[in-house]
Amino acid sequence: MAASIPQPVDPPRRVLMGPGPSDVAPHVLAALAAPTVGHLDPYFLTLMDEVQGMLREVFQTKNKMTLAVSGTGSAGMETCFVNLIEPGDKVLVCVNGVFGGRMSDVAARCGGEVMTIERPFGEVFTTDEVATAVKEYNPKLVAIVHAETSTGALQPIEEISKIVHDAGALLLIDCVTSLGGLPVEIDRWNVDAAYSGTQKCLSCPPGLAPVTFSDRAVEVMETRNSKVASWYLDMSMVRNYWSDQSRAYHHTAPINMNYGLHQALRDVFDEGLETRFARHTRNHLALSAGLEAMGVKFAVAKEHRLPMLNAVLIPDGVDDKAVRSQLLNDFGIEIGGGLGPMAGKTWRIGLMGEACTQRNVLLFLAALENCLLAAGCSAIAGSGVGAANEFYRSA
Amino acid sequence: MAASIPQPVDPPRRVLMGPGPSDVAPHVLAALAAPTVGHLDPYFLTLMDEVQGMLREVFQTKNKMTLAVSGTGSAGMETCFVNLIEPGDKVLVCVNGVFGGRMSDVAARCGGEVMTIERPFGEVFTTDEVATAVKEYNPKLVAIVHAETSTGALQPIEEISKIVHDAGALLLIDCVTSLGGLPVEIDRWNVDAAYSGTQKCLSCPPGLAPVTFSDRAVEVMETRNSKVASWYLDMSMVRNYWSDQSRAYHHTAPINMNYGLHQALRDVFDEGLETRFARHTRNHLALSAGLEAMGVKFAVAKEHRLPMLNAVLIPDGVDDKAVRSQLLNDFGIEIGGGLGPMAGKTWRIGLMGEACTQRNVLLFLAALENCLLAAGCSAIAGSGVGAANEFYRSA
Repeated sequence: MAASIPQPVDPPRRVLMGPGPSDVAPHVLAALAAPTVGHLDPYFLTLMDEVQGMLREVFQTKNKMTLAVSGTGSAGMETCFVNLIEPGDKVLVCVNGVFGGRMSDVAARCGGEVMTIERPFGEVFTTDEVATAVKEYNPKLVAIVHAETSTGALQPIEEISKIVHDAGALLLIDCVTSLGGLPVEIDRWNVDAAYSGTQKCLSCPPGLAPVTFSDRAVEVMETRNSKVASWYLDMSMVRNYWSDQSRAYHHTAPINMNYGLHQALRDVFDEGLETRFARHTRNHLALSAGLEAMGVKFAVAKEHRLPMLNAVLIPDGVDDKAVRSQLLNDFGIEIGGGLGPMAGKTWRIGLMGEACTQRNVLLFLAALENCLLAAGCSAIAGSGVGAANEFYRSA
Repeated sequence: MAASIPQPVDPPRRVLMGPGPSDVAPHVLAALAAPTVGHLDPYFLTLMDEVQGMLREVFQTKNKMTLAVSGTGSAGMETCFVNLIEPGDKVLVCVNGVFGGRMSDVAARCGGEVMTIERPFGEVFTTDEVATAVKEYNPKLVAIVHAETSTGALQPIEEISKIVHDAGALLLIDCVTSLGGLPVEIDRWNVDAAYSGTQKCLSCPPGLAPVTFSDRAVEVMETRNSKVASWYLDMSMVRNYWSDQSRAYHHTAPINMNYGLHQALRDVFDEGLETRFARHTRNHLALSAGLEAMGVKFAVAKEHRLPMLNAVLIPDGVDDKAVRSQLLNDFGIEIGGGLGPMAGKTWRIGLMGEACTQRNVLLFLAALENCLLAAGCSAIAGSGVGAANEFYRSA
């Protein structure tokens, strides 16, 4: 070999408070490192069943077709569109952030005739806005983001679902950032297709995309006129591998990633969904109190804020990258910058899964104060740590 | 939660001698379990560069566009076709096994006008056969499998490459099973696109697909008339994330899987490519000597056999599944059954990467003898272990 062999993997110890991946628990990492078995090993087939069962619980659904796609969250997005949309199908995509925009791109690549409605980044859609567009366009499928990772805004789904179904359309939601941190009630909301990722509030490393499809969505797949454009993501074959009946070989599943997801899901239910949601809310409110005390403003109106992804406006005169670099280099803390039109204007502070702790809230506020002082920022109104501690004491 | 929480991940300790995944070294598993960092963390970006560098070495190429696709081997296959083929493009696919068949399916889903030439499972194509088809069909791209995982046959590439390029076409090869176990000389053979998997002779768990594209292939991508149908696999965006210049966010890479691949590739170069290839050949020949002594016949002619995947005919009167179950249950040894028309007729015995050892050859031959005796098989001509030991002593 001409070049020298690189040094072994030895990553720095980060505190992952960006838009994902989030911190991964040591026993999830240990599960990842369990010995590999074959993709048709009886042990692995049982483990797949268990992963499916736990995914159904976290999606709050009885949907039979619920599984982990062998790719990251965006592969989950593509799986939903490529299986449900045929060339010429009308698709309405609601765009209020980067991931809504990505959905519209993916839908068009599937041959969909895409109509979009838009809201400024950081805002959400009203039921009326969606109703008007559905009436005007009469789409086969409506796609909307539940938790916009690029903006930190939370989109209520339930009423929109009624509108969409009254019009005879299917509803597809992106719950990459919400799953495991906020209620995602697929059955109660009557959602037809949803995708997520493992590296947000489930706190498993990235590499798998949980998806779920309603019986109605499955029927749409089963009555397609054309083959699914993607062989790799074709649910008519993937489903057989995940089915407890057939187990027909399709592709070699990422065995160890499924080990990790299994343990991460176990953690979710060891804690309990309600307790986990409450933890996300509590730490979000403490962080909010701290940021507010420091004079740092949110980019999203209070009633639409995601607890697990806090998008804040970068204070005037403060250098985006300098502060993020200092957080990373001096404190090992990763936060995210803004995406799309928010680039350079916002920071995205994640409180996802394992990373959503009182310890991280206080550490982050203390470190941010340090960095803002270093940046000569005059905007620090008061003690963020003090306000967060006051919140924890009183709430 | 209604259902009870499953038991923690605790897989049985297998000896993976099937068609992949292969055994994974403990330090590769340990690398998988290193703490997750962000997908844009400077540490991870450096690690991506190192993975690319090592992939170039193992592919024996200087191709700039060489990286690990965030999916398993079949996602690598799809990446090659979906980026190089546009609707209406003429594609010649050489089919002599399941994976050639899969390529033809994938090419057609990309809108390609697919012509196939076929050889019976277990055989390979002559240069003349390909030349005739290329002349007749004048395709934009010719696709062929270097190492057919379904049949155990090795296809020579170099002369075919000349034919394909003389006709102005691109050459795409599947080297899922060969990479890291046999010479795969992308530049010397003048291959335009190749994909592999991590779970064969690289002995990393499944979850990533190494791919490489020649400058000519890149030019074909850059002059496309239509958007790539798959957003997730669109190299015009994926390449920017892997580029040392741009690093534009596309999707969240499977961080820990890349840690594992990094360590697995380090192992390849710690051993050295030539030594590794020789080890695969040596253990294959020992296994062959042992099987021959027992009276078990190969399904592939001697000159076309893959060292890392030994397809043998199931002896008359022996129950396929009973023997494979006994190997698994009594000895923890996984081997593969036949695929497609070979189902029930062949076993596929892998000697891939970490699993390709003298220990495994002897263990397998001893265990197979045990199982064949239990099956009342009268075909055991002599001692497989004895013949293999004789080979090791003399070779």
